[in-house]
Amino acid sequence: MTQNIAILGASGYTGAELVRLIATHTSMRIAALTGDRKAGMAMAEVFPFLRHLELPDLTKIEDVDFSNIDLAFCALPHATSQAVIAQLPRDLKVVDLSADFRLRDLDAYEKWYGKPHSAPDLQTEAVYGLTEFYRPEIKAARLVAGTGCNAATGQYALRPLIEKGVIDLDRIIIDLKAGVSGAGRSLKENLLHAELSEGTHAYSAGGKHRHLGEFDQEFSKIAGRPVQVQFTPHLLPMNRGILVTVYVDGDPSTIHATLATAYESEPFLKVLPFGALPSTRDIRGSNYVHIGVTGDRMAGRAVVVAVLDNLCKGSSGQAIQNANLMLGIEETAGLLFAPVFP
Amino acid sequence: MTQNIAILGASGYTGAELVRLIATHTSMRIAALTGDRKAGMAMAEVFPFLRHLELPDLTKIEDVDFSNIDLAFCALPHATSQAVIAQLPRDLKVVDLSADFRLRDLDAYEKWYGKPHSAPDLQTEAVYGLTEFYRPEIKAARLVAGTGCNAATGQYALRPLIEKGVIDLDRIIIDLKAGVSGAGRSLKENLLHAELSEGTHAYSAGGKHRHLGEFDQEFSKIAGRPVQVQFTPHLLPMNRGILVTVYVDGDPSTIHATLATAYESEPFLKVLPFGALPSTRDIRGSNYVHIGVTGDRMAGRAVVVAVLDNLCKGSSGQAIQNANLMLGIEETAGLLFAPVFP
Amino acid sequence: MTQNIAILGASGYTGAELVRLIATHTSMRIAALTGDRKAGMAMAEVFPFLRHLELPDLTKIEDVDFSNIDLAFCALPHATSQAVIAQLPRDLKVVDLSADFRLRDLDAYEKWYGKPHSAPDLQTEAVYGLTEFYRPEIKAARLVAGTGCNAATGQYALRPLIEKGVIDLDRIIIDLKAGVSGAGRSLKENLLHAELSEGTHAYSAGGKHRHLGEFDQEFSKIAGRPVQVQFTPHLLPMNRGILVTVYVDGDPSTIHATLATAYESEPFLKVLPFGALPSTRDIRGSNYVHIGVTGDRMAGRAVVVAVLDNLCKGSSGQAIQNANLMLGIEETAGLLFAPVFP
Amino acid sequence: MTQNIAILGASGYTGAELVRLIATHTSMRIAALTGDRKAGMAMAEVFPFLRHLELPDLTKIEDVDFSNIDLAFCALPHATSQAVIAQLPRDLKVVDLSADFRLRDLDAYEKWYGKPHSAPDLQTEAVYGLTEFYRPEIKAARLVAGTGCNAATGQYALRPLIEKGVIDLDRIIIDLKAGVSGAGRSLKENLLHAELSEGTHAYSAGGKHRHLGEFDQEFSKIAGRPVQVQFTPHLLPMNRGILVTVYVDGDPSTIHATLATAYESEPFLKVLPFGALPSTRDIRGSNYVHIGVTGDRMAGRAVVVAVLDNLCKGSSGQAIQNANLMLGIEETAGLLFAPVFP
Repeated sequence: MTQNIAILGASGYTGAELVRLIATHTSMRIAALTGDRKAGMAMAEVFPFLRHLELPDLTKIEDVDFSNIDLAFCALPHATSQAVIAQLPRDLKVVDLSADFRLRDLDAYEKWYGKPHSAPDLQTEAVYGLTEFYRPEIKAARLVAGTGCNAATGQYALRPLIEKGVIDLDRIIIDLKAGVSGAGRSLKENLLHAELSEGTHAYSAGGKHRHLGEFDQEFSKIAGRPVQVQFTPHLLPMNRGILVTVYVDGDPSTIHATLATAYESEPFLKVLPFGALPSTRDIRGSNYVHIGVTGDRMAGRAVVVAVLDNLCKGSSGQAIQNANLMLGIEETAGLLFAPVFP
Repeated sequence: MTQNIAILGASGYTGAELVRLIATHTSMRIAALTGDRKAGMAMAEVFPFLRHLELPDLTKIEDVDFSNIDLAFCALPHATSQAVIAQLPRDLKVVDLSADFRLRDLDAYEKWYGKPHSAPDLQTEAVYGLTEFYRPEIKAARLVAGTGCNAATGQYALRPLIEKGVIDLDRIIIDLKAGVSGAGRSLKENLLHAELSEGTHAYSAGGKHRHLGEFDQEFSKIAGRPVQVQFTPHLLPMNRGILVTVYVDGDPSTIHATLATAYESEPFLKVLPFGALPSTRDIRGSNYVHIGVTGDRMAGRAVVVAVLDNLCKGSSGQAIQNANLMLGIEETAGLLFAPVFP
Repeated sequence: MTQNIAILGASGYTGAELVRLIATHTSMRIAALTGDRKAGMAMAEVFPFLRHLELPDLTKIEDVDFSNIDLAFCALPHATSQAVIAQLPRDLKVVDLSADFRLRDLDAYEKWYGKPHSAPDLQTEAVYGLTEFYRPEIKAARLVAGTGCNAATGQYALRPLIEKGVIDLDRIIIDLKAGVSGAGRSLKENLLHAELSEGTHAYSAGGKHRHLGEFDQEFSKIAGRPVQVQFTPHLLPMNRGILVTVYVDGDPSTIHATLATAYESEPFLKVLPFGALPSTRDIRGSNYVHIGVTGDRMAGRAVVVAVLDNLCKGSSGQAIQNANLMLGIEETAGLLFAPVFP
Repeated sequence: MTQNIAILGASGYTGAELVRLIATHTSMRIAALTGDRKAGMAMAEVFPFLRHLELPDLTKIEDVDFSNIDLAFCALPHATSQAVIAQLPRDLKVVDLSADFRLRDLDAYEKWYGKPHSAPDLQTEAVYGLTEFYRPEIKAARLVAGTGCNAATGQYALRPLIEKGVIDLDRIIIDLKAGVSGAGRSLKENLLHAELSEGTHAYSAGGKHRHLGEFDQEFSKIAGRPVQVQFTPHLLPMNRGILVTVYVDGDPSTIHATLATAYESEPFLKVLPFGALPSTRDIRGSNYVHIGVTGDRMAGRAVVVAVLDNLCKGSSGQAIQNANLMLGIEETAGLLFAPVFP
């Protein structure tokens, strides 16, 4: 049965990526697309790469008839999302791609986002959308909160290690390298080609990046005690892809075995042979995660490197995967295509 | 019915692109992969981006059992291809992606490639693989010669104009901008990131590029008299994509209408509204061609701009499209996915 | 004697490039820097790459004491420039880098820029700043109008050919490929790294680009009759560099000889051996122009390819070269450094 | 007085960078250039970006008359360098840019480079070329060994901290991001634009990278006891630039103050205000190093980020700086030019 899908906020990169993915999804059909500032425009005008598709024009959210919509993806900016979702029918299935519903704790939200949540009941209702670790909850959920793309990458490297107690919880460092599409279509000088290409820099270092809220929440929950990590993101001259280099104290072989075992049945998570390290080029445009582990000449130190595509597995692909579960579709439907290389 | 496919020369970019495309093709199944220097290796070692697929290991061509192969793609280097195909069973369907069988005239081959053809009977047998213009011949063919990627782009811009006689045949200039993957995986200094990125240059200018052989053959055939074009390719710091800027003498509106009419039923060829010009970014990773037309302040001058992805529509996607026809599969099967943007 | 220099509009790319160049100029000293929206800031905050220099903070233009300034560079946006220069002391030497004073004809200005010029007396006074062709006028000038970077590149390829009458004036096509820094620090979606990298497109095609006003003015003046060219600019995923591929009807050897002769004493203009074609990578960051000529298999057709760095020779380097002449300094002072490669 | 310079191995990137720098150096003059495989060629053929310079043609080393050479830069591959330098006149001043003379300990050399040193007496004689920390030794030296570019970057971030005892010597992690020119002009698939652009990966992780030999040697010497660091290099899609993100245990303010004090008189080393972090874009093409320090929400943890241009300050610029000292020239001569941005 084909499910009718609405995409709210279809004029940004994650919205466009949802359209790209749904275009070849045999059980989903795009019934409505919204984009406030671009309402009235055809998608082919906003994103000419979608010109070959027959798509509804962009409308305003208030002009969508939600009675025939089976599930809505909400790809709106942070803060806007909570206001919009609060106005949607309360029985509508929603996958939110913003940061608004990722944190379970109201105080944590206020701490990281600088103001109280405007829809606290929804925040309580929402299920954290890291598919592989919340399958039963997502299947039963009405509202799923997509994870941060950085937060997802770090968690794929670390969750089984924390759960199995094979690393020192007080010595975790996540050094992250991110492509620029994660910043969205924002008009900022440092995102211009002339300023971003041909160089790199760190940003939001020293415990300031908001995705730390997700790391804190999830890692502490798994460990059963507070866990804090060091986290330094860097912006790289590439469009898609996140690579985390995670420094941990623990036995490298045990760490590799723990990850390999945890993910052996996962369709999208691939643990490389011990010592092999992944490249973002090998997952570009796809829903796959590649993870590598290596040791160090110093015993008891290990490095875990994980890569994913921030727009796909880190955001819109994850959202489709979750929507598949929520709608009773095969989890991998529409997501098994290969990366694009070169 | 699933067709068994062999890919000869699977360790290059066009070979890998064939694997990527066939991975989601519901009527094809990869039965054999060859790669002489890399025989014995798993594809995941040669191309880690294909790690998620279950694929046969690379073998030598002589180790392939062709009796159960329905069609072979030959993605070998020029010159090697003619030697290899001459040794294959004469009833095996073959789509060749090299330059070896593109030219119908034996002398033309020798002129452009510098030595006589070693399999002249096969050269005579082969059908030129520009799908939209050779459908009946391709359906009936045993051996199809994939076009040059540059040659394909130029022809999409020009063939209907020549056929309908709406431009001056003696004043055609094709200024071409090509991404680097068209050069393949060759180890040359000028293809290194350090030397290719952040700049551009022209090459093989002044009537020297081999794809001129295809332009000469096809345009002269359509026109019924010799046609020569000026052709200047440029190498750009991007991986996928070709853009041709074609300067012609003719009425811009007529030119636009001629192209729009010629391609209105074509699933992969999209003519933009008059005055709109395409971007390679909007067809990246896909089988689509976007074509734009504009006039000039000087009456009777027009510019046609066409873009395609050299590895997909310009090579491996075209090859799949042709194979679909040869095997009686729906022509668009496995090719209707969207481009990847950004 | 060290000359005191003011740079008006130092927070854009051409302003920063002027600072970079003057930093090693032994006869110039930066005495004032202005940047309206960023007044009060240190240059190291606006452009951290200039952190090592001792520079005055940015101020508002009205706070500059022009009595001790020997020459002002005006790197302000188009239209702003004419308003500001009209308010400056009438005996102050000025090199303007905007488009405001490039066209000698008041009607031509209005046609290309869409409104009447607000300082017509200054427009009349200004000297066109293509150094090699206006040396005596520039030496004597008070106000010099820097050329468009695209316009400069095309003129280096064509002026001697038009002057010597060795090409057909009615069949000139300039196909231009430009790096993105020419668009300045403007915040536009299509200048974002995510949208500009990894692709190319044509823009302002068909006789619409404003630099055509300069081509019309200069080529017609040289020819002594109206000359129009076809001109198609393309935006490339690189930061610095312009390459023009100029298609002309004429004898290739004569064309090469004409350019080689015309430029043989020029310090910055290098004509390559016949058949060799230049790369933008070989002039990046420098004041040099490389020019190549080749023929075609069709007799009487030739291609001229010229490259320069749009921010240096196409804008700020040219401005320094002109300022050197206006101030009686050696013309090449501060400009003889090598390109940066890779 | 102008010094006569020979560059042995001028056909690679560091050789070309030396030519670029010496071209504007008022006290040096290039008297000989060698390049074995390219002997007989003009530099303009090998590196067209140097076309504007009058340079001697490339010769074989045995054809150089060293009697009139004041100093030779040796930019040859590792292992070749020790063989060549052993044959040079023993009173010739030499700055070697290879890895051959960086390690003082013969066993350490053999361990990291896999075979015994062929010129152990020269290895003993050579002075380690990290200018700011070996000035007196370099001034007096005949043979100076240029440092590894990665090793230099890490040392600028760490040496004063180790010397002053303000960090835990057993918890140092260097996560390094490097541009591709550091790999030289080697023809490898993973250095092709098609494979390197648009992605990133780690390499030589886990204590395998040869530059660890330099870290071990220098940090242990300063500390007076063995010091080992964790070190993970990553390759980035950019040409020039290295960024190290160094994780240390210590008080962030003390760390910042220690670096600021140590470098306050250094012409090329710039410590940013506390909390500000550097970008490789701001030192591209120059001899400057920018260093930033920030703390973490976890007390006692700090991050030091340092950037430099691998070809300039990390290699050829450092070599010129050392040569200046060896020849009695002002240390900063020829090196005070600004970075190129954008």
